[in-house]
Amino acid sequence: MSLCPLVHLNGALLPLSDAHISPLDRGFLFAHAAYEVTAVYGGRFVDLEGHIARLERTLAGIGLPNPHDGEGWAGLHRELIARNALVEGLVYLQVSGGAYEARDFAGPEAFTPTVFAYADTKALIGAAARDGIGAVFSEDSRWKRRDMKTTQLLSQALAYRAAKEKGAETALMVEEGRVTEAASANAWIVTAAGEIITRDLSPSLLPGITRAGVMKLRQAGGFTITERAFTPEEAVNAAEIFTSSAGAMVAPVVRLEGAPVGDGRPGPVTRRVQRLYYEAMGADVAVAAPFVFDRD
Amino acid sequence: MSLCPLVHLNGALLPLSDAHISPLDRGFLFAHAAYEVTAVYGGRFVDLEGHIARLERTLAGIGLPNPHDGEGWAGLHRELIARNALVEGLVYLQVSGGAYEARDFAGPEAFTPTVFAYADTKALIGAAARDGIGAVFSEDSRWKRRDMKTTQLLSQALAYRAAKEKGAETALMVEEGRVTEAASANAWIVTAAGEIITRDLSPSLLPGITRAGVMKLRQAGGFTITERAFTPEEAVNAAEIFTSSAGAMVAPVVRLEGAPVGDGRPGPVTRRVQRLYYEAMGADVAVAAPFVFDRD
Repeated sequence: MSLCPLVHLNGALLPLSDAHISPLDRGFLFAHAAYEVTAVYGGRFVDLEGHIARLERTLAGIGLPNPHDGEGWAGLHRELIARNALVEGLVYLQVSGGAYEARDFAGPEAFTPTVFAYADTKALIGAAARDGIGAVFSEDSRWKRRDMKTTQLLSQALAYRAAKEKGAETALMVEEGRVTEAASANAWIVTAAGEIITRDLSPSLLPGITRAGVMKLRQAGGFTITERAFTPEEAVNAAEIFTSSAGAMVAPVVRLEGAPVGDGRPGPVTRRVQRLYYEAMGADVAVAAPFVFDRD
Repeated sequence: MSLCPLVHLNGALLPLSDAHISPLDRGFLFAHAAYEVTAVYGGRFVDLEGHIARLERTLAGIGLPNPHDGEGWAGLHRELIARNALVEGLVYLQVSGGAYEARDFAGPEAFTPTVFAYADTKALIGAAARDGIGAVFSEDSRWKRRDMKTTQLLSQALAYRAAKEKGAETALMVEEGRVTEAASANAWIVTAAGEIITRDLSPSLLPGITRAGVMKLRQAGGFTITERAFTPEEAVNAAEIFTSSAGAMVAPVVRLEGAPVGDGRPGPVTRRVQRLYYEAMGADVAVAAPFVFDRD
């Protein structure tokens, strides 16, 4: 990852070193903020409309006005990547409640949100996609409205930190004996029979835009996808596990709590999901992701 | 409330308008931050040691190094009120994970925290203490580690906002049929028999410093205090309700969901708790809080 030089702050494009917010911003004081991360591949956004629609829902859910319409958000995103000449990577966008003279939980009648965005150069189809990552289990201690994409991310930060300490890259979060999702991605398991399972949507987990993208591959891939909660034991015994997120796209999980998942290599179903997902976003997989053929 | 002109940011005292943080600060991106609010009365801090000790516990719990020892924190607090000539009000202190070049959930090996503090001029024994406040019920949607005082405060911000819309000043938060606490205060009910009940400490609620201060009045007040969870129905039927917090100290709740609590006026037990609490912090109640005698 490498931050692009120009960031967006409240309508202006400026160097990061000139981008400042007030410590009284409600994003800093109360985690009163929504965010989105959108992938850029070949100079084009992946499912930008889906991200903008979810941002709209989150803002409504946390009582903030939406400072732009869909065209406005798309323009902001396009300007940011154009001015930074970003071809592949991510755009991070955060909309917070803004800064006011007094720290007041309820806040003012009318909010003036802070809008911050930056672009990040990153190879989206990289080593993690090729070789897979390791995961550990972590108790899901998040708040109850995980269907909204807010910056209440402390639980995930601590889960990632705990994973790193155990030599893993992510965590499968567990609540009441069921996996909710990965630390900042949806989680999927593949049974020995080839059935794909991912948790059904509810306030317990984020409705991932990449998750929706994978769902759309059902027919093309001939996948049997069941949406239901699964147990940590089912994950331990799964033939394959993968995660989906805008940042890491489809990432094979090849180690769980230090033990191999399946044969310890990205499995054939995961490879097919990757291949179809990359193709759908316009990648020439023979060049960009030759590894997707390694289980054919 | 009125913000004092000089704020503290990372070791410097400066005007608020000169105090800036990076939008990449982990407090803004991940709610990776601890905070404390300490009352100042007659130029002296109320239970500053308790606040500093809790800050230490929160920082350890969220994996951040403590940038100061107790003497350092006390000095920072003292300098802030001395330079602002604050005699009565609050000091707000926030310690976040700091800003780094990349947005990374796990963060760096070693953190360089951001330290921000400001002082606020406020009459601590004001109209709310005298006349009481209104409350509504609100579902407690917070994360599971409420025993740590972090900036994951979105649920409370939304609860306050919902309360305000219903013409109330605070919310009693309810989870699994029991009141956890008020939106940013501990909650207490008094039964018709004069028994005081407040929820026992657990990860479900904050171990309030003012709560501990009220507990210390048990003997002097001849109070029977039972620590256990209580239901919304018990609150509705209570003779009295009050909240405890550093900012509002002991605040009578005289309306609940629009209906009067008891006779709709601050009750005699609440008045006795207020009187003893104010006296313990050095107030001459005959002058500063004559209303505490109104139910004698």
